[in-house]
Amino acid sequence: MKNTPNEWSLLDKIKFRVHRDNPNIVVPLGDDAFVFKNYPGYSVICQDMLVEGIHFNLDYFSPEDLGWKALAVNLSDIAAMGARPHYIHVSLAIPEKLTNSWLDDFYLSMSGLADQYECQIVGGDLCSSKSGVIIDVSIHGSCEKPLTRQGTQPGDLLLSSGPLGLSQTGLIALSQNFPEYEVAKKKHRRPVPRLDLQSLLQQKNKYIHGLIDTSDGLINDSLRLCQEKFGFHVFIENLPIHQDTNKLAFQLGTTPEDYALWGGEDFELLMTVHPDHYEEFSDWHLVGQVTTEPGVFLNDSIRKTEITEFRGWQHFNDFSK
Amino acid sequence: MKNTPNEWSLLDKIKFRVHRDNPNIVVPLGDDAFVFKNYPGYSVICQDMLVEGIHFNLDYFSPEDLGWKALAVNLSDIAAMGARPHYIHVSLAIPEKLTNSWLDDFYLSMSGLADQYECQIVGGDLCSSKSGVIIDVSIHGSCEKPLTRQGTQPGDLLLSSGPLGLSQTGLIALSQNFPEYEVAKKKHRRPVPRLDLQSLLQQKNKYIHGLIDTSDGLINDSLRLCQEKFGFHVFIENLPIHQDTNKLAFQLGTTPEDYALWGGEDFELLMTVHPDHYEEFSDWHLVGQVTTEPGVFLNDSIRKTEITEFRGWQHFNDFSK
Repeated sequence: MKNTPNEWSLLDKIKFRVHRDNPNIVVPLGDDAFVFKNYPGYSVICQDMLVEGIHFNLDYFSPEDLGWKALAVNLSDIAAMGARPHYIHVSLAIPEKLTNSWLDDFYLSMSGLADQYECQIVGGDLCSSKSGVIIDVSIHGSCEKPLTRQGTQPGDLLLSSGPLGLSQTGLIALSQNFPEYEVAKKKHRRPVPRLDLQSLLQQKNKYIHGLIDTSDGLINDSLRLCQEKFGFHVFIENLPIHQDTNKLAFQLGTTPEDYALWGGEDFELLMTVHPDHYEEFSDWHLVGQVTTEPGVFLNDSIRKTEITEFRGWQHFNDFSK
Repeated sequence: MKNTPNEWSLLDKIKFRVHRDNPNIVVPLGDDAFVFKNYPGYSVICQDMLVEGIHFNLDYFSPEDLGWKALAVNLSDIAAMGARPHYIHVSLAIPEKLTNSWLDDFYLSMSGLADQYECQIVGGDLCSSKSGVIIDVSIHGSCEKPLTRQGTQPGDLLLSSGPLGLSQTGLIALSQNFPEYEVAKKKHRRPVPRLDLQSLLQQKNKYIHGLIDTSDGLINDSLRLCQEKFGFHVFIENLPIHQDTNKLAFQLGTTPEDYALWGGEDFELLMTVHPDHYEEFSDWHLVGQVTTEPGVFLNDSIRKTEITEFRGWQHFNDFSK
């Protein structure tokens, strides 16, 4: 037979690249749908799309970066539920100019990241795109007790698992083609989902009131944890700011705190806990406190300033969130 | 507070549109991920992407058509496993020119179709697109016994649940702006996934050797059921061809059988069964038979013609399949 659909050989290469043996799989990649045995506890699903020109620019995103990041932003949602990831679907629309080696690099990087968290790519789509690259990833995971955005109480402390504003620092350095800022650039191109915290989170889940990942900046993500019911104060002198952010702010004549307050895509975890339980999370950064009265205030040692103009981090319009 | 992210009100409208109460939901739409209690049996996942200009054209796809079809093609994959659908994620990238009422019509139609099969939209993404509309849908379902593409044996009969080539008839009528052909146009814009057959399929699953949905035309989908191990004969005089297809072929001076052999997107089910069990599926159309020897032949009452040139149905490049 000749002229059987010629995309099959390309798809076979991708299948080879992403295949992993797994005793929980009932019907593997290659059928109408993927079938697996249920994991203990509850099932967890999330899905996130990345669009060229909106979320990333191929001028400074290699195929390896993109494969990594498209998966990492979804793994971060799994981490923000205190869950474990298992199975990944990837839909990819690409312009014809992109080569098979671009695709191979993309899937190699993505499956390498998946391997780090013992999950695997089990299906998806590959389409032509008449314009840019579009990637949509969904993940199926499981958890014993989901850690949600609900449950925050007035008086709770706001804790961050890591530096804030570093990804935006990297984005600016990349888009303006600045040399150096390697840590920030890596944070932007290859964020590391905080799945390393999963066992700690489940072990201490009784202390955690609310949990979210920082995709839209500290202010916007804290607003979500407060569910429009409460206000909060940010301890501006206590913000975890990386030296790359300080350096870039100095170079551009801006204030580094702005990056931490409004910069998105750090993919750290942000939680609310009662002050009595702060010691359980002493490695986390104390960045603010929830208040009964509405309003968002920036507090330093000498004054308290209310924020009245809110800036949206436009990268994500996720309606599931 | 003013200037909180202004997309929230739009997202709130979508959430309102798609929300359904469901006692199996643990964490509803609105958190980092969606959490639910496992269903009995195995879990089933599929994901499919539709790209404007590749899979559809907005000149003849209303938002209602698109919302319907993007879900229907995925429900068809669930049907082709003999499974039931439960939860849907929808990622949507749209150009800024599309209005909020376009979006509302899209989600209203999609959730209306979901209601017909007792499943619901529980998450997803909404992004800007610098070019056309891109829709990616994933579905989580469940089944007791998955019905796969594997298991076909030489001698098996090929049975189709409905007419073949009708969607392509509709596509041609739409793209050439022909009046009439309403049944074919509806088949193309609003295919009905064969989930109505789910209980029959599970009840008679011991007789079913292989099952697939017809997304890429009879020849290409039969090749998949034969897994490159066997050949098959098509009973050309027995093909289920709708009168719209006959009429269009006559109008264009082509042969209607070509539509059935090569036209994609009918989203009927195609199964292989031992001839002894044909009577169990007497409502299905007998379209061919699997052979030990390789090769694809078209048989009519007077001759047998081998197919040597294969045409791909280019709409779907799904690497999970």
